[in-house]
Amino acid sequence: MVVFGGTGDLAMRKLLPALYYLHRDGHLHEGTRIYALARAQHSAESYRKFAKRHVSQYVARSDFEQSSWESFAARMDYLSLDVSQRVEFPKLTKLLKKDSERVRVFYLATLPSLFAPTVKHLASVGLADEYARVVLEKPLGESLLTANQINDQIGAVFDESRVFRIDHYLGKEAVQNLLALRFGNALFEPLWRNAHIDHVQISVLESVGVENRGDYYDRAGAMRDMVQNHLLQLLCLVAMEAPVHFEPEAVRNEKLKILEALRPITGMDVQDRTVRGQYAAGEHAGERLPAYYFEKRVDHDSNTETFVALKTEIDNWRWAGVPFYLRTGKSMAQRKSEIVIQFKPVPYRLFPRSGDNPENNRLVISLQPDEGIRLSLMAKSPGRGMGLQNVDLDLDFADAFKRRRWDAYERLLLDVIQGDATLFMRRDEIEAAWRWVDPIIAGWQDCYRSPKRYPAGSWGPDAADSLLERQGHAWLDQRS
Amino acid sequence: MVVFGGTGDLAMRKLLPALYYLHRDGHLHEGTRIYALARAQHSAESYRKFAKRHVSQYVARSDFEQSSWESFAARMDYLSLDVSQRVEFPKLTKLLKKDSERVRVFYLATLPSLFAPTVKHLASVGLADEYARVVLEKPLGESLLTANQINDQIGAVFDESRVFRIDHYLGKEAVQNLLALRFGNALFEPLWRNAHIDHVQISVLESVGVENRGDYYDRAGAMRDMVQNHLLQLLCLVAMEAPVHFEPEAVRNEKLKILEALRPITGMDVQDRTVRGQYAAGEHAGERLPAYYFEKRVDHDSNTETFVALKTEIDNWRWAGVPFYLRTGKSMAQRKSEIVIQFKPVPYRLFPRSGDNPENNRLVISLQPDEGIRLSLMAKSPGRGMGLQNVDLDLDFADAFKRRRWDAYERLLLDVIQGDATLFMRRDEIEAAWRWVDPIIAGWQDCYRSPKRYPAGSWGPDAADSLLERQGHAWLDQRS
Repeated sequence: MVVFGGTGDLAMRKLLPALYYLHRDGHLHEGTRIYALARAQHSAESYRKFAKRHVSQYVARSDFEQSSWESFAARMDYLSLDVSQRVEFPKLTKLLKKDSERVRVFYLATLPSLFAPTVKHLASVGLADEYARVVLEKPLGESLLTANQINDQIGAVFDESRVFRIDHYLGKEAVQNLLALRFGNALFEPLWRNAHIDHVQISVLESVGVENRGDYYDRAGAMRDMVQNHLLQLLCLVAMEAPVHFEPEAVRNEKLKILEALRPITGMDVQDRTVRGQYAAGEHAGERLPAYYFEKRVDHDSNTETFVALKTEIDNWRWAGVPFYLRTGKSMAQRKSEIVIQFKPVPYRLFPRSGDNPENNRLVISLQPDEGIRLSLMAKSPGRGMGLQNVDLDLDFADAFKRRRWDAYERLLLDVIQGDATLFMRRDEIEAAWRWVDPIIAGWQDCYRSPKRYPAGSWGPDAADSLLERQGHAWLDQRS
Repeated sequence: MVVFGGTGDLAMRKLLPALYYLHRDGHLHEGTRIYALARAQHSAESYRKFAKRHVSQYVARSDFEQSSWESFAARMDYLSLDVSQRVEFPKLTKLLKKDSERVRVFYLATLPSLFAPTVKHLASVGLADEYARVVLEKPLGESLLTANQINDQIGAVFDESRVFRIDHYLGKEAVQNLLALRFGNALFEPLWRNAHIDHVQISVLESVGVENRGDYYDRAGAMRDMVQNHLLQLLCLVAMEAPVHFEPEAVRNEKLKILEALRPITGMDVQDRTVRGQYAAGEHAGERLPAYYFEKRVDHDSNTETFVALKTEIDNWRWAGVPFYLRTGKSMAQRKSEIVIQFKPVPYRLFPRSGDNPENNRLVISLQPDEGIRLSLMAKSPGRGMGLQNVDLDLDFADAFKRRRWDAYERLLLDVIQGDATLFMRRDEIEAAWRWVDPIIAGWQDCYRSPKRYPAGSWGPDAADSLLERQGHAWLDQRS
């Protein structure tokens, strides 16, 4: 495991903690070595100290054991390397020499602009052979065109089967449970279609603002940062047909079919079916929150969206006529990621409606802050009569399994090591997603309107609510 | 409210406690009076004392309030009356005189043999007019013939719309919730049919033996005492089509259609599709339990069944091919009433089977000892891979509603007072049930075989398990 960007934020917060857990719990082969690479000068020893300081912060205190850390640290080595300099790569070849016939995972936890030189130089020193796999993090381009450039550069060196594009949402237990629910149970699949589902909501809301990612974010915006990858991936898992097998190509073929069936949003439809917002100054729990354009490393005239809501449909036999509402934003009232499957009302109301609960059946799959599923049913109100009231059947995964939850990166890193690409994105998926996203971004740029302002700490611009109201729908959290 | 059998077991254990709660919680009209009738000599005052001693036992201690009791007792009066004596009834007319134009509920909590003289004498003194309703408890006959005799005698005096035949199972919240689940939710009805349901189990198991009801029980047996009424009623609610309205005639029409569609069990089929058992001496939790034929007031050579298991089908479009297994017994290992809806397996197994959990989806509606529903699903086992494991979505009604549960009799008595017969059995239902039960009892009598012995405190005779095993099924509690 070779981590480019070995001193970076992702390595410290996610990769090393995940590797630590995999090590501690015995999932790593005893010969597995971890090579951290970055420009900074470190000895192996000083890097381990540096890593320990960070990892011990991101691992639960009760899970951080000195003896586990020591045996873990013994797997680690450090190499100071400037990836832009071809001449530095022989150092890496030399370092990896004794492992030359074992799987080499190159994790590119660096700026995307370094992807191309890195893989080119890896190839030039003979490290991109059949034992090598490469892991890429988003953002993979900022349009179909630029994504294709990156993918072409990677593809010139690594066969598609050796490229692992991570979307860490797919590593979440609750997301995989969506597949288990759909295809491991006979109950849901007969209902999982336009005859029974009224609409679907997918929300990924963050309470934090842009934090210190202003320079990246101000060029990307919520559409590229969240919708093009995470939200569309979730939509694919909700909507896809049962794959022939639970294997990489079969699963990704089905996801691709959904992306290709997504109704394009182009021209006038962009104003009609999408809402983009940008947070203004606001307040949350008594704390003043800054406006987006006052954030660090953000352009004061920025028109970048920090919020997107949109309505789309999937033009296929199963989903025709079912709106899929997607929503994501920063500086929202609450940190919450969830998928809401709203079923149609009963065809005929046999029992009296009980005043305050006119809700229909609903399945909510929560991804954040807690992972769980909740099925909302109507049951009889106790006592006389046959009035109905809402009850929830809840399953909190943490409670149900009484085991520590794997972090998404643990799962995904282990999959890479084992060569299982099921939960990674294939190039044609990325392309189909950009093909759908590009015209929306173009539509926004063409219309000369600014994003709608919304107060930081709120639920986004009002327009996001009216987008649903027009259809008689409402975001689950906005219901009275 | 006139209670015949006013000093009896049912009055003390169920009727008066239910009326006490209805009174305390403000559900009784302020003019409602309660007249207890029996042969014993009591003054109103001594009866109230007698009643208090019993009622305070059967009401939760925290619910028995002195002031509520006193205002409740003020509603009560007592009349010593021998119902077999026509000449005693004018006393009752006189007592009820001041209430002559108000609803009169005659609750016949007596031996069935007294039903006919009671209603005849009520009519003869003019009390069976349009203000009168009559409530009957099971057993209503012991065959179609004798049930018809009773119903004819009642029907000669009371129009069918004034006859309330109580099956207290229908008063249970969980039973009414079965209807709420089915017809108040869009989720279940599309699955509620032979395409998706593998089979249905209805179990009503008692841990007690025949107790002090030996004389009645030894003539009746489990088939007449439990299957003909409670189990068939539960089966009707599971299987019935959506009624046109939630109103007495509409609901009972649909239940009747199920009873008429029940496949008859006659001739050789009786041995094949039914199991009857009788408990022998046994042990439960270290306590020795007597054999049935050693119980008080039971014939030592008795062939009466204390256990029945049977397999039936409903010959209609919705249910063709779905076995319905019914089971009831006394001196069982556990007190438990439940309805199990076992769904079919997934049509194709996409994920690896996890060793110890080969279960399919299942909905369990528990009636006793606790009321609740449990939906068993497959979810992903945490961590690597896509193995599935069983998880339960639970709803305990007591937890969910945080209110005292109404006892079945509270609900049903209030319905009688309000004239709502939805949860009571209509004459044609009773007849259809007997028409289906009679040939099974006849088949047992014809075959000269004794009931299968099973140890008291067990799960019944082995034959009850093999009845299901032949189809590849198993009672839920018998699964390993």
